[in-house]
Amino acid sequence: MLKASICTIGDELLIGQVIDTNSATISRAIGTIGVKVTGMVSMPDDTKCIISTLQEQLSLNDIVVTTGGLGPTKDDITKPALATLSGSEGYVLHEGQLSIVKEILHSRGLDMLDINRAQALVPDTCEVILNKRGTAPIMVFRGLGGGNSTLYAMPGVPFETEAALGDVLSDIKAHYPLDNILHHNIMTYGIAESALAKMIAPWEESLPKEVHLAYLPDPLKGVRLRLSIYSGTLSNEKEIIDSKIEELKAILGDYIYSCDDDTLEGRLGTLLKESGKTISAAESCTGGEIAHLITTVPGSSSYFLGSVTSYSISVKEGVLGVKKETIDTYGVVSEEVAREMALGVKKLTGSDYSIATTGYAGPGGGDAANPEGTVWVAAATPDGVFTRKYSYHNDRKRNIQRFAASALYFMLMQILHPQKP
Amino acid sequence: MLKASICTIGDELLIGQVIDTNSATISRAIGTIGVKVTGMVSMPDDTKCIISTLQEQLSLNDIVVTTGGLGPTKDDITKPALATLSGSEGYVLHEGQLSIVKEILHSRGLDMLDINRAQALVPDTCEVILNKRGTAPIMVFRGLGGGNSTLYAMPGVPFETEAALGDVLSDIKAHYPLDNILHHNIMTYGIAESALAKMIAPWEESLPKEVHLAYLPDPLKGVRLRLSIYSGTLSNEKEIIDSKIEELKAILGDYIYSCDDDTLEGRLGTLLKESGKTISAAESCTGGEIAHLITTVPGSSSYFLGSVTSYSISVKEGVLGVKKETIDTYGVVSEEVAREMALGVKKLTGSDYSIATTGYAGPGGGDAANPEGTVWVAAATPDGVFTRKYSYHNDRKRNIQRFAASALYFMLMQILHPQKP
Repeated sequence: MLKASICTIGDELLIGQVIDTNSATISRAIGTIGVKVTGMVSMPDDTKCIISTLQEQLSLNDIVVTTGGLGPTKDDITKPALATLSGSEGYVLHEGQLSIVKEILHSRGLDMLDINRAQALVPDTCEVILNKRGTAPIMVFRGLGGGNSTLYAMPGVPFETEAALGDVLSDIKAHYPLDNILHHNIMTYGIAESALAKMIAPWEESLPKEVHLAYLPDPLKGVRLRLSIYSGTLSNEKEIIDSKIEELKAILGDYIYSCDDDTLEGRLGTLLKESGKTISAAESCTGGEIAHLITTVPGSSSYFLGSVTSYSISVKEGVLGVKKETIDTYGVVSEEVAREMALGVKKLTGSDYSIATTGYAGPGGGDAANPEGTVWVAAATPDGVFTRKYSYHNDRKRNIQRFAASALYFMLMQILHPQKP
Repeated sequence: MLKASICTIGDELLIGQVIDTNSATISRAIGTIGVKVTGMVSMPDDTKCIISTLQEQLSLNDIVVTTGGLGPTKDDITKPALATLSGSEGYVLHEGQLSIVKEILHSRGLDMLDINRAQALVPDTCEVILNKRGTAPIMVFRGLGGGNSTLYAMPGVPFETEAALGDVLSDIKAHYPLDNILHHNIMTYGIAESALAKMIAPWEESLPKEVHLAYLPDPLKGVRLRLSIYSGTLSNEKEIIDSKIEELKAILGDYIYSCDDDTLEGRLGTLLKESGKTISAAESCTGGEIAHLITTVPGSSSYFLGSVTSYSISVKEGVLGVKKETIDTYGVVSEEVAREMALGVKKLTGSDYSIATTGYAGPGGGDAANPEGTVWVAAATPDGVFTRKYSYHNDRKRNIQRFAASALYFMLMQILHPQKP
């Protein structure tokens, strides 16, 4: 099996100022084409260290992917280090990347500086994969490690790396013999990884040894179950996978919200587009995260009318029309206030559906009945309003994410299974 | 200077299932006592690989900190690997950790199993630092690496690692002579990394060689400039750093929004708390991201009254009171609509300040005057409304982030430099 090492470069990693998410992103992606990641290394912006570390990794692996150190400033030294490592005799200007640099600068109303132009200069020992989202091209150095090893130098900015990963995977597939791996994703929400594992243990036991299962938890998406199978290892793999997914659906029921690699907001958007219905949101503790998630979906303007973030009681009462008595009687974080918020924003925007949240994200706040980490979610539909309380125990940012995801999941369930109150 | 390596152990890291946050936590902490982290390595649950990698790291560093692989199940093999590496002749039971294990099991209403008891067994070659939050003790192996190197084996569970870090740092201080390292962060916004580098090039040249400068760009925070200096390398380092920061302020002016490690929303919150003023937001293309960012700051409820996400024209007109003629005459994405949105939400919530955005995040949309990637920002203050157009490139999610950050920065500037329209 093809072996790979992921090397991240930058002092900011070693002093802990930045958490490295690129390594996980790259290893997940590279795993999908059947390449085994044997190790991950982070190193400082130090030429000698970069060269010696990469040479060692190249001698141990078929593929080395680096990220970082490709910026235009003095402290970015990955490019010259790779020029030395690959025995380059000079730099050449890559016209394709240069025109992207020009575009990006132009779109930002900036003039082209020499250091911008230098971004399109690459050692004469490498091939280039265009970085369409940023100025630093992806550099491909072949025949290293005293043989057939390849080094891919990628930018450190996560979204540039993510955008270029597809082209890097294609390049690997084009240059190395790889089995084709089929992946099937099943998205679950509302059940913890450990509980999920226990619930499907017998089913997992029943999987053919050629089928590999991975649990990929995400606070905003729930637990993704990934079934992987090497193409050709089974004669009737398609049928087997399909039947296993059917079995899983029977076991997990509504915990499954999609059998594609989807998100809660994406699935919600698909359902609303199909039905031609609209939605709105009233957010207290989630502070805009639900609206933000819904509007990250391209085309969401066709079904998302708008939302109100009612962080103050005055906005809850004055804009959403929550009754003062309701707040006085039940408290701001209560089933009743969530219900009136949902109905208020539905009326205000004239939407078919609406989501509302009120809770304590922390730090602090809450009482015995609704401690920190508690959120009341309300989902209004053409048939009525439905509510549910969710309890978590994490930090503020994580709570806000889980509250928003729980609300989207709860709304999704009301749309999938319409019921009368 | 004392050198350290951080080694994380676990297959889940190498397949990208888990993002390693321990390394950043540990390196941040270890940096504060003046230990230089020279590298970070992630390795699989493989005995041979663990031993050879750790031996190499021990030969290169004074200190090696490992996390992971200390659990009670079969796939946790760090402990036996370390027993072999340290030439242990057997295991001893650590009574102190055993009583913590008993406590933890009791609090969870669980019986003590052999695998639980085994958690308190450690190689006879190590000292123990108690893990008060979990069952696996921190193991300290001294005199490794053919000399004076020390290995600290910590659990993989982040909150257990964080809880035990203080004791580990104390142990390092007690056994090694240490320098102190100082980091100073200057936060900038509104200027690209390359333009920034050109602007401060002469200043950068003038830095003493003991002072290291790093550029750390972030779409939501702008470019962070980090000055690092090892205490004791200069006689009057405090004065030098302070004077260099004053020089930088004179050069960059308003591009600097904080001389601490702050965020735009954090700085905005501090200013509003100090002045006792309130703020609200009206979001179109940013779809809730501004409200979300503002409310990630603990205590934001004291100054953030609320927001309206007006994704539809009906909500712009019906809730925010934007005039139909204004939209018909100037278009939804226009300076005039941004202005009326800001005034509308300010009136609706009764806030002192308000931010509004209308633009094209893409994909698609826009016209010659306001192409995809364009946002009109309006900031209403007690003195009037101020507007500015920002233009970006990139994909939808990235544009939403940059739009929101630009709006926060523009609002910040209006508060810092009040002006009459």
